[in-house]
Amino acid sequence: MSEAPGQTLRALRDAKPLVHNITNYVVMNETANATLAVGALPVMAHAEDEVEEMVGIAGALVLNIGTLSEHWIEAMLLAGRAAGARGIPIVLDPVGAGATRYRTETAKRLLDELDVTILRGNAGEVATLVGVEAEVRGVESMGGGGDPAELAREAARALGVIASVTGPVDHVSDGERVLAVANGHELLAAVTGTGCMSSAITGCFAAVRPDEPLAAAAEALAAFGVAAEDAARAASGPGSFHAGLYDALAALDPATLDARANIS
Amino acid sequence: MSEAPGQTLRALRDAKPLVHNITNYVVMNETANATLAVGALPVMAHAEDEVEEMVGIAGALVLNIGTLSEHWIEAMLLAGRAAGARGIPIVLDPVGAGATRYRTETAKRLLDELDVTILRGNAGEVATLVGVEAEVRGVESMGGGGDPAELAREAARALGVIASVTGPVDHVSDGERVLAVANGHELLAAVTGTGCMSSAITGCFAAVRPDEPLAAAAEALAAFGVAAEDAARAASGPGSFHAGLYDALAALDPATLDARANIS
Amino acid sequence: MSEAPGQTLRALRDAKPLVHNITNYVVMNETANATLAVGALPVMAHAEDEVEEMVGIAGALVLNIGTLSEHWIEAMLLAGRAAGARGIPIVLDPVGAGATRYRTETAKRLLDELDVTILRGNAGEVATLVGVEAEVRGVESMGGGGDPAELAREAARALGVIASVTGPVDHVSDGERVLAVANGHELLAAVTGTGCMSSAITGCFAAVRPDEPLAAAAEALAAFGVAAEDAARAASGPGSFHAGLYDALAALDPATLDARANIS
Repeated sequence: MSEAPGQTLRALRDAKPLVHNITNYVVMNETANATLAVGALPVMAHAEDEVEEMVGIAGALVLNIGTLSEHWIEAMLLAGRAAGARGIPIVLDPVGAGATRYRTETAKRLLDELDVTILRGNAGEVATLVGVEAEVRGVESMGGGGDPAELAREAARALGVIASVTGPVDHVSDGERVLAVANGHELLAAVTGTGCMSSAITGCFAAVRPDEPLAAAAEALAAFGVAAEDAARAASGPGSFHAGLYDALAALDPATLDARANIS
Repeated sequence: MSEAPGQTLRALRDAKPLVHNITNYVVMNETANATLAVGALPVMAHAEDEVEEMVGIAGALVLNIGTLSEHWIEAMLLAGRAAGARGIPIVLDPVGAGATRYRTETAKRLLDELDVTILRGNAGEVATLVGVEAEVRGVESMGGGGDPAELAREAARALGVIASVTGPVDHVSDGERVLAVANGHELLAAVTGTGCMSSAITGCFAAVRPDEPLAAAAEALAAFGVAAEDAARAASGPGSFHAGLYDALAALDPATLDARANIS
Repeated sequence: MSEAPGQTLRALRDAKPLVHNITNYVVMNETANATLAVGALPVMAHAEDEVEEMVGIAGALVLNIGTLSEHWIEAMLLAGRAAGARGIPIVLDPVGAGATRYRTETAKRLLDELDVTILRGNAGEVATLVGVEAEVRGVESMGGGGDPAELAREAARALGVIASVTGPVDHVSDGERVLAVANGHELLAAVTGTGCMSSAITGCFAAVRPDEPLAAAAEALAAFGVAAEDAARAASGPGSFHAGLYDALAALDPATLDARANIS
């Protein structure tokens, strides 16, 4: 199934899918640039007047609750329903779920009311959403949720999604199988929005593999992780790593991705 | 007319005009940094309570509809009327016009109600606004509008603006003359917001050459394009190109700009 | 008192305090990354529904009025009262006070209604808030306020805060003592949001030294200034300086900071 992330990457660059993001203010530029670098086309639009029309020309929808307010939630619901009606994948990033009730409840509401395809979060966020004790400080997971492979499986079953739980090793599950992705670099934790970028890239991969969201989610994390490994080699710290991450995403070639993706 | 973009750049750095941007969330930081790097002072302000006062101390106003919502449109109208009353140049960037009705109609409304000096967009966006068939995917032009020189001339006539249509070669027209600007680099398309940056820099140049907006628009694109050529030489991909673009804008000297500007 | 900024930096990295920022759209990513690079955890949240809860788990609150609108002011007041009730430090950055009445009045209102610990601004902004004639162009201080050491002392007395007035040399005062901080580099003025970053880092330092805000404010500026000196050495212009600033903040070690901090 996940034997060929390079093939998905090649398909992505051929199709250049439009990925509609309704995301937080902190990472808009960065997720748009990550999307461009991997080979897709980003569009950011949040007005209730246009989100349904915009999602109508998109190949995937990425919802990210990092800086919420009321109008944005309404826009996410409108866009999400339109995405569901068209059958395009929806990726939800529940940034900071567990840190405040507002975030937890909004993430739950989006999961309830929309046909979310892939939930991409850290262990604390995902554990919160399946009702497991977890510690979330702001937007950082302080752990919790126990074994991350089991957490991914449980979240997938309980929430009816592909659960993509990122951490030192990522775990992606459809409720039955669990794929572990062991790519990445610790410098990812030193740059804000890298989790959000991984969600955006998950949307790009899902757009070209809508019928295999488990594979798409794992392959996206492998691609992002391999790019991070490349960027880290040339980096002197978080600033140069951040700039290098876009270079590495753009330079990532399918054969290299196949050779280095560590999905098991 | 456009024989001396270096002179305008020199004037810009001497005057350090304040350029008021009401722009989208994705590119606020990047357009502010591009404005600073070329030698002007950016200010971002969108509250209806202050935009008229802010534009009252500015040398140009840049309106960008990349992430619209109702209050922002009202603020653009208030600021635009105040700019018109003061006679300072208004640059409009109709990001994504053609992708959704909301964007198309908002761009048309701003053109109707305000005395827009320069319209800076890609071929798809500008074609949409003059009623020519075009394909716009999100915020990307997929072409359309036919011959870009004719599109610029027609847009300038139909809309009563200086039309600045960017692409592999840029075309700027006042409805009579058409200037072609053949500077730039393909890496510009790999970084989000470079179109928005070119609009912001157009505002900087227009601020110091308010009576010659055709020349200002062409010179701004030449300056941005030459800086992009310099940044591309040292770049390993979109991330290092992006960081290098600010270095190159700041390092651009008037004599180099005169020597390398390819305006015809 | 300020003999050991390295000790505060060490404490900061051990404690990794969560710093809640309600800040402007232009610098959200950059202030979050500066906060991470120095060793703290940033969180950006502005919804009235969650700011009190979020500040309840934070070690400091940073308020920045760079892109105001009504809901944001309400959120700042709610968060600020909750911070005051918990006794955690509040840093206020009055971006553009003096440029428009809206900004000046909002900054004054926040100072009146909240127990602001540290006011971090440029000379023009701070002078405006103590009623001294100053010229502020957009968000840039054109000088004013006379002797900056006296301005800091006067602002501290008049406003009941630690006044942290940044410029070529920074001056920090509690109304009695005035500390001058002579670190930094002129490239800081070439990148947007570096003032906002210094406010964010002031929040990080204040979070681990809440009982000594005068020292914390001066040490934060020294740390940021030393990092800027390091970043400038390797920079080719504002873009590479900007990326290098995060590298330098992350690489800054306590002994180096103690050796090079120029606080008198």
